[in-house]
Amino acid sequence: MAKKPAQGQEMWGGRFAAKPDQIMEAINASIDVDQRMAEEDIAGSKAHVRMLADRGIVTEADRDAILGGLDAVIEEIRKGDFPFRKDLEDIHMNVEARLKELIGEPAGRLHTGRSRNDQVATDFRLWVREALKTRADQAEALMRALIDQADLHAETVMPGFTHLQTAQPVTFGHHLMAYVEMFSRDKSRFQDALVRMNESPLGAAALAGTGFPIDREQTAEALDFFAPMANSLDAVSARDFAVEAVSACSICAMHLSRLAEEIVIWASAQFHFVRLSDAWSTGSSIMPQKRNPDAAELVRAKTGRIYGALQALLTVLKGLPLAYSKDMQEDKELTFLAFDALDLCLASMTGMVSSWTVDKDAMRAAAAHGFSTATDLADYLVRELGLPFREAHHVTGATVKLAEDKGCDLADLSLEELQSVEPRLTDAVYSVLTVEASVNSRTSYGGTAPARVREQISRWKELLE
Amino acid sequence: MAKKPAQGQEMWGGRFAAKPDQIMEAINASIDVDQRMAEEDIAGSKAHVRMLADRGIVTEADRDAILGGLDAVIEEIRKGDFPFRKDLEDIHMNVEARLKELIGEPAGRLHTGRSRNDQVATDFRLWVREALKTRADQAEALMRALIDQADLHAETVMPGFTHLQTAQPVTFGHHLMAYVEMFSRDKSRFQDALVRMNESPLGAAALAGTGFPIDREQTAEALDFFAPMANSLDAVSARDFAVEAVSACSICAMHLSRLAEEIVIWASAQFHFVRLSDAWSTGSSIMPQKRNPDAAELVRAKTGRIYGALQALLTVLKGLPLAYSKDMQEDKELTFLAFDALDLCLASMTGMVSSWTVDKDAMRAAAAHGFSTATDLADYLVRELGLPFREAHHVTGATVKLAEDKGCDLADLSLEELQSVEPRLTDAVYSVLTVEASVNSRTSYGGTAPARVREQISRWKELLE
Amino acid sequence: MAKKPAQGQEMWGGRFAAKPDQIMEAINASIDVDQRMAEEDIAGSKAHVRMLADRGIVTEADRDAILGGLDAVIEEIRKGDFPFRKDLEDIHMNVEARLKELIGEPAGRLHTGRSRNDQVATDFRLWVREALKTRADQAEALMRALIDQADLHAETVMPGFTHLQTAQPVTFGHHLMAYVEMFSRDKSRFQDALVRMNESPLGAAALAGTGFPIDREQTAEALDFFAPMANSLDAVSARDFAVEAVSACSICAMHLSRLAEEIVIWASAQFHFVRLSDAWSTGSSIMPQKRNPDAAELVRAKTGRIYGALQALLTVLKGLPLAYSKDMQEDKELTFLAFDALDLCLASMTGMVSSWTVDKDAMRAAAAHGFSTATDLADYLVRELGLPFREAHHVTGATVKLAEDKGCDLADLSLEELQSVEPRLTDAVYSVLTVEASVNSRTSYGGTAPARVREQISRWKELLE
Amino acid sequence: MAKKPAQGQEMWGGRFAAKPDQIMEAINASIDVDQRMAEEDIAGSKAHVRMLADRGIVTEADRDAILGGLDAVIEEIRKGDFPFRKDLEDIHMNVEARLKELIGEPAGRLHTGRSRNDQVATDFRLWVREALKTRADQAEALMRALIDQADLHAETVMPGFTHLQTAQPVTFGHHLMAYVEMFSRDKSRFQDALVRMNESPLGAAALAGTGFPIDREQTAEALDFFAPMANSLDAVSARDFAVEAVSACSICAMHLSRLAEEIVIWASAQFHFVRLSDAWSTGSSIMPQKRNPDAAELVRAKTGRIYGALQALLTVLKGLPLAYSKDMQEDKELTFLAFDALDLCLASMTGMVSSWTVDKDAMRAAAAHGFSTATDLADYLVRELGLPFREAHHVTGATVKLAEDKGCDLADLSLEELQSVEPRLTDAVYSVLTVEASVNSRTSYGGTAPARVREQISRWKELLE
Repeated sequence: MAKKPAQGQEMWGGRFAAKPDQIMEAINASIDVDQRMAEEDIAGSKAHVRMLADRGIVTEADRDAILGGLDAVIEEIRKGDFPFRKDLEDIHMNVEARLKELIGEPAGRLHTGRSRNDQVATDFRLWVREALKTRADQAEALMRALIDQADLHAETVMPGFTHLQTAQPVTFGHHLMAYVEMFSRDKSRFQDALVRMNESPLGAAALAGTGFPIDREQTAEALDFFAPMANSLDAVSARDFAVEAVSACSICAMHLSRLAEEIVIWASAQFHFVRLSDAWSTGSSIMPQKRNPDAAELVRAKTGRIYGALQALLTVLKGLPLAYSKDMQEDKELTFLAFDALDLCLASMTGMVSSWTVDKDAMRAAAAHGFSTATDLADYLVRELGLPFREAHHVTGATVKLAEDKGCDLADLSLEELQSVEPRLTDAVYSVLTVEASVNSRTSYGGTAPARVREQISRWKELLE
Repeated sequence: MAKKPAQGQEMWGGRFAAKPDQIMEAINASIDVDQRMAEEDIAGSKAHVRMLADRGIVTEADRDAILGGLDAVIEEIRKGDFPFRKDLEDIHMNVEARLKELIGEPAGRLHTGRSRNDQVATDFRLWVREALKTRADQAEALMRALIDQADLHAETVMPGFTHLQTAQPVTFGHHLMAYVEMFSRDKSRFQDALVRMNESPLGAAALAGTGFPIDREQTAEALDFFAPMANSLDAVSARDFAVEAVSACSICAMHLSRLAEEIVIWASAQFHFVRLSDAWSTGSSIMPQKRNPDAAELVRAKTGRIYGALQALLTVLKGLPLAYSKDMQEDKELTFLAFDALDLCLASMTGMVSSWTVDKDAMRAAAAHGFSTATDLADYLVRELGLPFREAHHVTGATVKLAEDKGCDLADLSLEELQSVEPRLTDAVYSVLTVEASVNSRTSYGGTAPARVREQISRWKELLE
Repeated sequence: MAKKPAQGQEMWGGRFAAKPDQIMEAINASIDVDQRMAEEDIAGSKAHVRMLADRGIVTEADRDAILGGLDAVIEEIRKGDFPFRKDLEDIHMNVEARLKELIGEPAGRLHTGRSRNDQVATDFRLWVREALKTRADQAEALMRALIDQADLHAETVMPGFTHLQTAQPVTFGHHLMAYVEMFSRDKSRFQDALVRMNESPLGAAALAGTGFPIDREQTAEALDFFAPMANSLDAVSARDFAVEAVSACSICAMHLSRLAEEIVIWASAQFHFVRLSDAWSTGSSIMPQKRNPDAAELVRAKTGRIYGALQALLTVLKGLPLAYSKDMQEDKELTFLAFDALDLCLASMTGMVSSWTVDKDAMRAAAAHGFSTATDLADYLVRELGLPFREAHHVTGATVKLAEDKGCDLADLSLEELQSVEPRLTDAVYSVLTVEASVNSRTSYGGTAPARVREQISRWKELLE
Repeated sequence: MAKKPAQGQEMWGGRFAAKPDQIMEAINASIDVDQRMAEEDIAGSKAHVRMLADRGIVTEADRDAILGGLDAVIEEIRKGDFPFRKDLEDIHMNVEARLKELIGEPAGRLHTGRSRNDQVATDFRLWVREALKTRADQAEALMRALIDQADLHAETVMPGFTHLQTAQPVTFGHHLMAYVEMFSRDKSRFQDALVRMNESPLGAAALAGTGFPIDREQTAEALDFFAPMANSLDAVSARDFAVEAVSACSICAMHLSRLAEEIVIWASAQFHFVRLSDAWSTGSSIMPQKRNPDAAELVRAKTGRIYGALQALLTVLKGLPLAYSKDMQEDKELTFLAFDALDLCLASMTGMVSSWTVDKDAMRAAAAHGFSTATDLADYLVRELGLPFREAHHVTGATVKLAEDKGCDLADLSLEELQSVEPRLTDAVYSVLTVEASVNSRTSYGGTAPARVREQISRWKELLE
């Protein structure tokens, strides 16, 4: 007879004499982290036992006992009554041990033809799949919020910046629609990742498959996977799906950090382009006048932990031999950390964008400053006087220098002054020197002319129907 | 008249008095890096000038002069005769300045309706597109090499490891096919990235589009892009395509590092599973007997620089306001570095795999060791004696302990000894204790049974036709 | 009269109308993380209020009320009775709000002449200082465990590897002492970081210092800082101390990962050099024979999260303008995560090393294999026959080839065979071809000769007295 | 006789039949990178051969031949005449092969008692040591430039920001001195790293030490190392020195990126606090009016590659078994990349800071805006009316709200208006509401009062004498 294992080693302890000590338990147990996959774990077990019964591997009576027991277990977990035990290491053994307490011997038949290796891969894929779906939805929600704002501001003129220097006037709607493009690609990355990873590892068992006549198609279908994974070693060893998912999170976080940075800059007293609503601002414990864009700063900052999680995952997996190694236990906490942070960031950004106040006057005033229509002058010289662009560029540079020296803007120079640089200029030139003229002239496809921006908005509204 | 700019500032220096000093030139110039995009730059310029002429923005004569000049320039570059100048900063200005020397005034008309911002985005997308195509092809070449080896070794038995401990016997072919699955997903990531990024930024100009009546559809089509990008600010600001591409490289490098680590371990005297060919081994300057798996180690190590390039790119882009900032100049060197490293790694791995020698005897001997058929015994107890899996697992644990204490393997225990643990066992049990029996029994879909491995091989051969 | 703020905004809400919504609270609150600095926060407050009273800024009665109240608060926290509130954002406001409930009006005088900005910087530095001290101690404990093992194995011969190929025989004690060197440098990095960061930010107030006549020397001394920080903007903005600390953790984790990798390899059936004790091994839910080095794998894997935390911190701080930005709130969770992981890793490694079983026979057998004394032959040729090293190297290479072709080791070649390569060889050559001779001959300083290893051990034992 | 090796394998090829193919050469050779360590390599060889002769291991004649030959080699390298060969893999074999061509047989005696493993470790440590020294000097040069500017601007008032919102007035000198503190810590990190790593690996040979009676103290001293490394395995395996050095570079880059970000923001039209000199600005190829802070942006961006190099190095070293593995070959390029980038960044920042123009009027005007003296009002209420700070904070919040509603600043409120919030206020309050009064009042140690700033400047000037 097999000797009775020490408590807490009942799953694998048959051969061991000593008990893992406290530090070992602390480094080894994952239950604090993976209890979050309880729903997925039980869904997988139900699909597995139904299949086992259909294939005659367990009796229908055992199946029913197990299904009933699993329902009881998940009920306890949902209610917060479940006694999670660290000595049982992980969610899989916690559930199975509790199942045994509830239904006795049949519980021991649930693990037939599978292993924790394929079980955890299944749970984790189910969790990541759902998280990818949700983030795609959140990216879309943010796109909608941006489109709504773009709709309000298709004609609002602001300075377009390069190098944070005034470059050319653009519309604020146009600027916001640029982010719609970015977040739409983020959404499509979440979706591509989902399609690629939606295959079932269940039934790969420890690593080699099993001799029990299981039906992997059936469990794959029951869990909404497209198909079972084609190689059992790959099924238990692969974690590229998690890396790809967190990489998509990282890229999305990068886009969010750009918008967040802009909000922080725009909310400064010096720019004064937007003001966040009270709900998305905080004060200071010492400076009573402060109105801080904390949420934008935190969205920007959380980029750090998402990038860090990506790098951590890649590091964990580097040089790891097949098949399962315990190193892989680290994958879940890192992935949860990245997805949780992105969840908050997407939601917060949507909240900020939807409720901010835009100071159109400050935007327009800034746009009219800093020689922002200099390119329009250069283009005018090409079009009207037939100058090669390079020469037009130099003439304009000299004109800007003249205006700068006089401390005025381009449109404030007299015709004589303009002609001192390029004698062929006439009064007609003034028509291209206003910010509205500039914006309205940029009618190339994808350009900032309000008509073009409205087209972008319409296109996206249709696409999102 | 505009004053004549100092040499080397002819493109943008109209307004400046002092010359950038030497350090500034060193930090600012990108020509050492971006000269690699000369072909893309000139292809883009040709498409642009053809469109300008078709739209009546430049004359046909100017167009022809420019096209001829560009052909002369690219010829010089291909021959290595081109005098790259650091004071001209980048590939765009080097080409245009040389064009001016060759054809004079018409050169100044080429830059009409575009900017370096959309030009560099176009060049870079063309380069990354080609690199993604090539890496996808190389991933496929590696898959083919692995499939060929799997074909030779569909019946070769080796120990399947988890935690680098002998777990269950598998076939070497099965093990190799796991990598085929991984590299196939890498290939599909390269392809998805390519599809998502294959849109044309050309015509977005500096950031806002242009007032010239350009045709962005035409240039997009001429350059084999699916479409022009829909938002000009996005077109010049977006670099997610590069991050996604380098992320796909990183995941592929991660997979390569796993196989490389296995090769290093397998090539050790202690494992002796594979021997790399002379072409892929090196010796020692001091220890004459050494035969080092340098290429495998370098493949494993280059993971570092690819991960590092990913992190670097993400860091550069974090919190960057729209539209173009000079920070983006860093993107190319980092991307080149990652793609170049992956190029070498994929090629080297294909070379190693195609030419290694496999020691089947060492593999089989290792597989027969370490109680690798213990799971088979447990499954037998479930099937034949109706034990719940958990109880079968404990019985087997006790049997392993008995064998371990006697210093023999499971199949070496006498029936009496086996029955001392579980009295109901009979002689029939010995039939499941050989590695061949074990491997042959794993017939579940995706399992390691040779028949199943052959199915995987056939499926992949068909898919790759 | 100032209007009464909404609940939960009592610290800074005087000017706000609307309540931050739930997402804002979730992204903004740090109390889940920073409650861990409760002891540090209260120690800082006590030092501050004592100084305020000494300088006549608050009365002695108020000071005593505050000190008593803070004692009551920390008591509640230690007992787990403290009602942490998310709407109060962080540990500072939770403590102050509770203090107000307990002692009323004087609580409002505690924050005189300071700000949350210098307060959190103080708390965090105190926490990191303690963590650095503890990790230095843990690194030393691991050094002691390694030295004890080295003492046992100063004469135990094992193969020294390069490229995981047998290179030259070394002693296991020598190998372990290499790690003592590494962990001693890690310890010194923790200590250097501690010295550099042990300055007090308290009294920098929000960013500019304060007009109250505070005494920063006094609070610095009370909190065991070397001195107050010399610039108030730096005091509240600097986080390089956290990055440096986590960088030191990363390097230490890197060293741990190397030893962990070796343990995983050594514990394989193929190497069989060490066997971890039961306390540091785990089994399998499906394969009853497994004895997995989980702790070593987890030590190796946790490198990922520590590296990730470093990268995350660096990312958060990149490009952050002075002085305090909310982004900095991310610093604590990331730092805690790295230090916690390293805590477990150092403790686990010490446990593993102290309790493993070493298979000396397997080590010696492996050392005697693979032509490991080839360098000794080459050196012999230089010494005895006066060959230049390069020629000796080639002669030895040819000898190895001969032995390899005959399937024997160097010492198994007959004198005739040896002379077929180099005619001047005599019987005396056999004396350098054993592993013991090889090891004993390496007597250069720092070499692997047992006498040299014992010197290293003695030196370290003295250093650690 | 040993058979003649194929060309290009003369160093280690005695046993190999086939030639490494082209890809292998490309992935394996490091000469493109490590030729940069030619000076260090030859310095190490000279120290080694002098010691060999002193110990009677080579003759004085051979020593002199070798020394003469090495001088000839380094002369060729300095002149750019040296024919670097990829088939000779690395700098060590290139030098030795050329030495052999120049002086014949004695060249073969140089490698006695050492190996490429300790040789490359020596070269690399010498290189990093020099680079650390230089970066420390450059950090100090930047400190001096900042101190000079702080001296000019000890009284220049600017808004101190938190969250990029106006917080309290500070002096520009104070702000710059905060960076002096940061860069001084960076400098001390470079120095600590240098001290820790300045030990000699030379004489560790391949990994185990050597039987030749070498004198490691002598070579250590000749190369200005403090001592020989105490463990030969550690000597050839350790790369923590490179990681620590690049980590110090990363933290310094982080500090630079913060100042660079501030420069970009300050140079915007909206802030207009500083204007970079022509030498440190660039223009646009399309927008003639642009004056872009390219150097500041590039300093900010290069943080990415430095962080990436750190992560790459850490990744390479993760889980690497002792002793030398080929993976380590990656360390040099990554380290060079980080140090080169930091070199440019430090030099560029020093250039920018030394030559910028500061717009004091814009700074003062911004400081006077945005209720920046609200804290002064609160402190006044505490001091003069005895309000607890928390109540004073609320009163001030209400006052700010009143001013905000009226669209004026605090000092513009009438006494009646002020008294409507707090009836006890008198005319005296206006004295604390100016920015000069505010700045002058912050006299706590490290505070922003000009007198305090001058003290900081004096202290640093003395320290840097």
